[in-house]
Amino acid sequence: MRIAIDAMGGDYAPGEIIAGALEAKDMLGSEDELVLVGDEEAIRSQLKALKASPDTFRIFHASEVIGMDESPVDALRKKPKSSIAIMARIASHKQVDAVLSAGNTGACVAASQLRMRTLDGVVRPGIAVVLPTYNGPITICDVGANISCKPIHLYQYAVMASSYSHLMLDIQNPRVGIMNIGEEEAKGTDLIKKTRAMLKSDPNVNFIGNVEGRDLFEGKCDVVICEGFVGNVVLKLTEGAVGMLFQVIREELMQRNKLLALWFKTVVKKIYKKYDYHEYGGALLLGVNGTSIICHGSSKARTIKNAILACKRFSEKKINEHIVQALAKSAVKSNGE
Amino acid sequence: MRIAIDAMGGDYAPGEIIAGALEAKDMLGSEDELVLVGDEEAIRSQLKALKASPDTFRIFHASEVIGMDESPVDALRKKPKSSIAIMARIASHKQVDAVLSAGNTGACVAASQLRMRTLDGVVRPGIAVVLPTYNGPITICDVGANISCKPIHLYQYAVMASSYSHLMLDIQNPRVGIMNIGEEEAKGTDLIKKTRAMLKSDPNVNFIGNVEGRDLFEGKCDVVICEGFVGNVVLKLTEGAVGMLFQVIREELMQRNKLLALWFKTVVKKIYKKYDYHEYGGALLLGVNGTSIICHGSSKARTIKNAILACKRFSEKKINEHIVQALAKSAVKSNGE
Repeated sequence: MRIAIDAMGGDYAPGEIIAGALEAKDMLGSEDELVLVGDEEAIRSQLKALKASPDTFRIFHASEVIGMDESPVDALRKKPKSSIAIMARIASHKQVDAVLSAGNTGACVAASQLRMRTLDGVVRPGIAVVLPTYNGPITICDVGANISCKPIHLYQYAVMASSYSHLMLDIQNPRVGIMNIGEEEAKGTDLIKKTRAMLKSDPNVNFIGNVEGRDLFEGKCDVVICEGFVGNVVLKLTEGAVGMLFQVIREELMQRNKLLALWFKTVVKKIYKKYDYHEYGGALLLGVNGTSIICHGSSKARTIKNAILACKRFSEKKINEHIVQALAKSAVKSNGE
Repeated sequence: MRIAIDAMGGDYAPGEIIAGALEAKDMLGSEDELVLVGDEEAIRSQLKALKASPDTFRIFHASEVIGMDESPVDALRKKPKSSIAIMARIASHKQVDAVLSAGNTGACVAASQLRMRTLDGVVRPGIAVVLPTYNGPITICDVGANISCKPIHLYQYAVMASSYSHLMLDIQNPRVGIMNIGEEEAKGTDLIKKTRAMLKSDPNVNFIGNVEGRDLFEGKCDVVICEGFVGNVVLKLTEGAVGMLFQVIREELMQRNKLLALWFKTVVKKIYKKYDYHEYGGALLLGVNGTSIICHGSSKARTIKNAILACKRFSEKKINEHIVQALAKSAVKSNGE
């Protein structure tokens, strides 16, 4: 498998990205190839700094970089020589099988969608993220690719994320919930109600109905579908709430017993390790014809390594084939939307 | 001030509701009157059980109750003799100045809006909730009254929640953020972009721009505005995330040292007390012509007591007058939306 890595994307690029690629390389087979996309000189000098041979990776030179804050569509148009644009282009030319970036999420989504195209039957790709919880991992789709969803999009997220949850996380017959403002059937927007009807009509989706914010942590379902806007808020809010709570506990302990506060640090570390979403490496852009992984902007070497391994696993598990089959046998069609 | 209390609303009605009313009564002045609305027999028997005189409160008999799961609009139509419907009706007849319920939120919103009407200039009421954080209390509006917002609604939530934050929480010139999927100006839906333009045009709103989920806990702003759908998810998710994290920590401590785990319980209790949203009593339905407070369905006596005291404070601070003035001098008008 040939995986293209955006060496220029993310807060710690290119250093941590290349370090992650080096770590992953040792764990991949000889049939796999990692390709770096980015400023050739910067990559070479980084390889030297890391004491790696200059020939470790094939390099595709990219003279431009899309910043984290740039408007995705504008940036792609203005910077055709950016690492993200080139990465998507070589994927479309079948020069690589997968792409991976910790850069501008919107630009990755747009470039992947545009160049790699969508899978047969898929209307809009969605980003799936795995949130580790006390009751097991939950797959949330979408977390930001699509902020103006139609019912067919949400329905297809359910189908795609079910395949993902089943094949990547080994969850049998994953229970799918739709994020809503109440458990009762009558609640929710028009979008929710129409999506519910579609989900109910498909016997191949294990749809359990509405879920609320708090249900995410209570083991009620394995997959949650929502608009990208809501999913993005969910993800970042969870991150923020956990961070604040640890801070509050630390503060409280410091006032009582400094030694215990110090000891608590090791407990926190252990918990972070247990519930570490970096282990999952990155977020899959489900629905594109190929493999596209988007990493957190703050990704360091370990996350990049895990994301590269996730690319391989995603492809080996033939999740895309599974999705295409599932959508082909579904009676819910897009009606050209 | 005359406050009507829905004795039948919530998971612990009527027992805890009446107990809360009794607690509050002791703290109110002789110029204040609490009125109970609900099944007269049930109320009288509860008063007896609590060893209170049967004449402690004026009672408005209501022979029907709207269940927590009923569709709000249908339920109000079908049950004109329900406690929520009667409560709103006596408020509209100026027999009371404020209403308070821990019952069906949607029905409270609909009944208040229908009967009490909106304040001059207000297009749609919104529920404001105060979330206590390490960096101070944050007011979020809306958390579920309005799941299909227009820009003018969100703009007015900013104006109303600013008045609330300023006068109820003593925050000078509260910083207002709009919940979005990124900090960058270009991000967000059409709704967000149009609302941003309105907020920027009003020099009387201290608008700081987009905020993300994690910013809620980092002291970046004092007021967050969002669609009711998003606000509802935010609220319930935070509750769920905090609950799960405490569970995880407890588990981890139990495995290490049972005594410490036990001791940690007292720390958790202290933290819950410090960051206890029950202290704020309930959520204000901002924008109705009067005072309408909605309590969590799980409210017990203390929350009801605090909510009753919040009613009085809200009215004393003349927040509604402040809102009407602020909207009158604003150049942003509703255009009949």
